[in-house]
Amino acid sequence: MPTQFDPPSGTRDFLAAEWELREHAFARIRSVFAGYGFEPLVTPAFERLDVLLGKYGDDGDKLIFKILRRGEHEGTGEADLALRYDHTVPLARVAAAYGSQLPTPYKRYAIGPVWRADRPGHGRYREFAQCDLDTLGTASALADAEVICAVHDVLDDLGLRGFRFLLNSRRVLAGLLEAFGVPAELGPGVLITLDKLDKLAPGEVIAELAGRGLAEAQAAPLVGALTAGDAAEQIRDALKRSDEGAAGLDEVDSLLSLVAGQVPGDRVAFVPRLVRGLSYYTGPIWEVAAEGGAGDVPATGGSLGMERILMLLPQPEAGHTRLDVAVTVMDERHAARSFSFAAAARGAGLRASVYLGSSGKLGRQLKWANDSGARWALIYGNAEEEAGAVTVRDMTTGEQASVPLSGLAAHFAELAAG
Amino acid sequence: MPTQFDPPSGTRDFLAAEWELREHAFARIRSVFAGYGFEPLVTPAFERLDVLLGKYGDDGDKLIFKILRRGEHEGTGEADLALRYDHTVPLARVAAAYGSQLPTPYKRYAIGPVWRADRPGHGRYREFAQCDLDTLGTASALADAEVICAVHDVLDDLGLRGFRFLLNSRRVLAGLLEAFGVPAELGPGVLITLDKLDKLAPGEVIAELAGRGLAEAQAAPLVGALTAGDAAEQIRDALKRSDEGAAGLDEVDSLLSLVAGQVPGDRVAFVPRLVRGLSYYTGPIWEVAAEGGAGDVPATGGSLGMERILMLLPQPEAGHTRLDVAVTVMDERHAARSFSFAAAARGAGLRASVYLGSSGKLGRQLKWANDSGARWALIYGNAEEEAGAVTVRDMTTGEQASVPLSGLAAHFAELAAG
Repeated sequence: MPTQFDPPSGTRDFLAAEWELREHAFARIRSVFAGYGFEPLVTPAFERLDVLLGKYGDDGDKLIFKILRRGEHEGTGEADLALRYDHTVPLARVAAAYGSQLPTPYKRYAIGPVWRADRPGHGRYREFAQCDLDTLGTASALADAEVICAVHDVLDDLGLRGFRFLLNSRRVLAGLLEAFGVPAELGPGVLITLDKLDKLAPGEVIAELAGRGLAEAQAAPLVGALTAGDAAEQIRDALKRSDEGAAGLDEVDSLLSLVAGQVPGDRVAFVPRLVRGLSYYTGPIWEVAAEGGAGDVPATGGSLGMERILMLLPQPEAGHTRLDVAVTVMDERHAARSFSFAAAARGAGLRASVYLGSSGKLGRQLKWANDSGARWALIYGNAEEEAGAVTVRDMTTGEQASVPLSGLAAHFAELAAG
Repeated sequence: MPTQFDPPSGTRDFLAAEWELREHAFARIRSVFAGYGFEPLVTPAFERLDVLLGKYGDDGDKLIFKILRRGEHEGTGEADLALRYDHTVPLARVAAAYGSQLPTPYKRYAIGPVWRADRPGHGRYREFAQCDLDTLGTASALADAEVICAVHDVLDDLGLRGFRFLLNSRRVLAGLLEAFGVPAELGPGVLITLDKLDKLAPGEVIAELAGRGLAEAQAAPLVGALTAGDAAEQIRDALKRSDEGAAGLDEVDSLLSLVAGQVPGDRVAFVPRLVRGLSYYTGPIWEVAAEGGAGDVPATGGSLGMERILMLLPQPEAGHTRLDVAVTVMDERHAARSFSFAAAARGAGLRASVYLGSSGKLGRQLKWANDSGARWALIYGNAEEEAGAVTVRDMTTGEQASVPLSGLAAHFAELAAG
């Protein structure tokens, strides 16, 4: 049950362990994208309202978080700003604002939260991370191939398994309709129905096509070819009967050959019925399907739904570790010395902190060391002071070693090395 | 003049070079804080409005960006959410929400944007980064010392020079008032005026104190002691006359001795007139003064004003580099091969991209390579195809070398190494 201290509905607080997991994934992504020569672009959390409105359709507009005007205008109840809904519209604004100051082509990635006032729940959030990869200012098919290779490398690098790139081309779809004699005016509706072939049985699709006015004599061969065991072959043969289809096939084959050096053959497939994004894209269209069916699609075009991808990642073996070295403070007189031990440990690249609690008892302080996940605890009491040494306790085995003060830096360097 | 494509007033678009500079600084900060055992905490961009309202005073409340209710409630013109104004109130909410699930003590850092509807301009932004460091759940003086050392290491690590930690204690201030016979009821007002000693002349301060009801016979010795060449000594002597003062002095001296191992002596000073934060803090109070006077204070308590710190940083020597290796595409037939060259370069850890433009001319493609800041360009045309080799051009010297295809991976490894 939510309390007054929970974060707002659909948002999350990320404590250390979860955040570090996310940050680790984001860092890998940045590194892969940078390797391809893509540059980061970071835009403000909010845009002027008029920049966003009307770009996402009526349903999208309703999901925009609007920011109330301020000061004397607050009372009007009007909004002038809004939280960004995606990274695409801000990119378009940036391209218009900076024009020739941007490199040509402009290859940029954007990783960061976007906000949508969707109904939260079932893994849906109102604040969630998106990761976009786009190339502006080129008509080259190489740009599509580069984005596919970069996204492949990211998913592979993150350790995702069982994913597959599904490729198609808008021209293949046009050729398909032509080859199977679908009247031009029925085209868009027919494609919307064909896109359901991964969810509906062939018979159901044929029935829906009939509802759209496509005679069964035309629908049955089309659906049959698309669902046959050798669908790709049958469709290839059919496409060659149409100029547009042949051109689309060339486009797909060229893309397949470009990515072949980077993407293993079993991770990429020509899927002639793939329609997704039809109304927005020209040329090649593609998406990524993760194992488990159509519900698990983490990437379309160059936009990665990071929340789903993060959920699909293999869980890390080790838990979160706050500390390598926990330094006890057995006596206030020794506090400055404990401080310097921690500093020496940090100097060797270890995470180290002194005990900040109020107990002078060793057992209590060792419990803190253990709770902090520390691998070693340092003890410096009266006995150690007399001996001019520090007791280093291995928190896993409980073994203790006495290390002379003069040898402590070298000892830390050894522990850090391994 | 702002255009319709500029980001909203008081916000910025960060293109690659500027973002990478910021990200580099943030990464150093994270690394130093983690070294001290502080953990990241990332809270949502917005909070429920009632969580934020009333926490920042009337003036602060006016600067909160409020988010309009949605759907059927949008018409009411009411807000239910608001962008976070700082990292402190979200931390308090998290502490209340997660309680015993958090480690004890809870040492956390937060780095990220906060939003305030301030008047923009003169280096003031409405979206700006803050970096907070806090320790909850301990009364130990070691916690203050740890935060000071961590902030010192961050500023030092970032390359900031000419900064100094100014230390004081609330108990020193109480003792000071007592030692100089300031009536208790005048105390808070007197301290507010004393805090202006870095901006006003001693005579002006004495006059303002008179306006607050403090007789010149008491004000003059107090201001005299605080502004004397040996102010620290005079004040130390005076404080010893008061129990509270002596206790405060102990507190300050204990802090000075704890940080002495980490913070060089010329970077930390006891400043008895330092009042900042008085009404919020108990125990030690401190701030960081950067060279150039009181206007340049990038840190108070554990909160770093990142925008000012970023402005004070030494400028990096090298500009932004998008690419190490620019791969030309002299013939469409060779595109897949160019792709594989880029992949091989990336395999060696280099940033590499193929040419995505439409020109088949070498000069044009080399201009692109140069504009991209590439150190090497790869050329593979018909001559190279016949020779089974790639031409590698050093973009700085113009020297060209022919590298056999079989030796390319090794060649890239050499280039990457050095």
